[in-house]
Amino acid sequence: MSEFDQQIAVQPAGDGEFKADLAPGWVVGGGVNGGYLLAVIGNAIRASLQDKPDPIAISAYYLAAAEPGPVVVTTRTLREGRTIATVAADLVQGDQTRLTTLATYGDLGDLPDDVRTSAEEPVLPPPDECVPNTMAPEEVRRIAPLMERFDMRFDPAHVGWAVGKPSGNGVLQAWFRLNDEREPDPLSLLLTVDALPPVTFDLGMPGWAPTLELTAHVRAHPAPGWLKVRHATRNMAGGMFEEDCEVWDSAGRLVAQSRQLARQPR
Amino acid sequence: MSEFDQQIAVQPAGDGEFKADLAPGWVVGGGVNGGYLLAVIGNAIRASLQDKPDPIAISAYYLAAAEPGPVVVTTRTLREGRTIATVAADLVQGDQTRLTTLATYGDLGDLPDDVRTSAEEPVLPPPDECVPNTMAPEEVRRIAPLMERFDMRFDPAHVGWAVGKPSGNGVLQAWFRLNDEREPDPLSLLLTVDALPPVTFDLGMPGWAPTLELTAHVRAHPAPGWLKVRHATRNMAGGMFEEDCEVWDSAGRLVAQSRQLARQPR
Repeated sequence: MSEFDQQIAVQPAGDGEFKADLAPGWVVGGGVNGGYLLAVIGNAIRASLQDKPDPIAISAYYLAAAEPGPVVVTTRTLREGRTIATVAADLVQGDQTRLTTLATYGDLGDLPDDVRTSAEEPVLPPPDECVPNTMAPEEVRRIAPLMERFDMRFDPAHVGWAVGKPSGNGVLQAWFRLNDEREPDPLSLLLTVDALPPVTFDLGMPGWAPTLELTAHVRAHPAPGWLKVRHATRNMAGGMFEEDCEVWDSAGRLVAQSRQLARQPR
Repeated sequence: MSEFDQQIAVQPAGDGEFKADLAPGWVVGGGVNGGYLLAVIGNAIRASLQDKPDPIAISAYYLAAAEPGPVVVTTRTLREGRTIATVAADLVQGDQTRLTTLATYGDLGDLPDDVRTSAEEPVLPPPDECVPNTMAPEEVRRIAPLMERFDMRFDPAHVGWAVGKPSGNGVLQAWFRLNDEREPDPLSLLLTVDALPPVTFDLGMPGWAPTLELTAHVRAHPAPGWLKVRHATRNMAGGMFEEDCEVWDSAGRLVAQSRQLARQPR
């Protein structure tokens, strides 16, 4: 069993509740990474349903930071039809809800095969010509142990922030692959959409950008291999910004899209 | 009191519940318009909070179509801090939840003034050089009385679908203004992001496109006057498509962004 699967594991505790244990390895800055939390909740929702294994849409509102350690995920099915189900789920730690979500699940394998997209696949140099996360300075890796959980290769064209020269365009691009060569699936995509540094790094604003809300759409089962992840923001205003994320699989398909609203780093 | 304000009115019924009456004038095809439902829920959430009048982010999952007539909106505050509150709200008709939402509210007037956007304002001819919704054929207006609720002027460059010549680009643009010259505000923007025909019209797929999920971000108080609304889709696949919406105010500011996941019209 891969590290990722161990760390998102949930145990049924009756009445739609599941126990999980947030691994310390997903900490970044002051809390546990929001994408990892989404994957843990997503795994509990999957376990609560019979034949609808895949997240199709999930919206998460981040109420408070979570810490490593035990949590309870409560799930409540609001409506279940033949092909999709809508579920509300909360991640509770101590007596406080840290993350509340709504989600629609189904079976992505049952969807028709049509693809008619005008979205353009991001262009990146091959992974071995990109900048690996292992090159991050020791002090960064100490406050962001999550960077040990995956292999991330930054597009050199959008990595100026790492040497104090952000492009100012509001774009980050990277290759992404989980440890243990754990292949991507719809659940791991929930992590992938929130695993890169905030796109505000490329605007010259390093620092933590707390997510208020994040919605992800998973559109297809990803093919095995490296994923391409692109983050972009266009509208930084009123102390907040939107961050759009696209995830493309090794077959060149746009497999997930997300948008989050986050607070501008201080 | 404008028609819109009358039709989104809510009456407190105790315990975070509000009664409302869905107006028949917002029907389109088989149900009540989803943007109008969002504005009704949004008004109830506003009424449930003391000093946080504005939606900042709201995510809606559409469980079943709603009909004109009485509904109950239940609200539950999940967390309230100094500047923002997160609320769960459901719209219930008969004994069935039709729409379930999560939302973050605050006071948009309290946000800092910074605007640093790379988004480009859509270019449209002036309203009187665009195609008004009043030109829709009588049979369309009969099944879509919501078109009587606002003045909508379609960009001629993206209105080929109306004469059987869709551009195939997946873009719609229009000017938008509510009846009674009711000026836009953060609440009316919740309607505006889902008031145009589905963007799939421009892909040669007329017909109803049921929304699974819609998330809107309201980023600023809109200036009075006409709004510019732009819908675009890039990824039609697996029988679903995403629809991105931008709303720009008369001062040239991007005041709302939304994305929905919808089923492809049959």
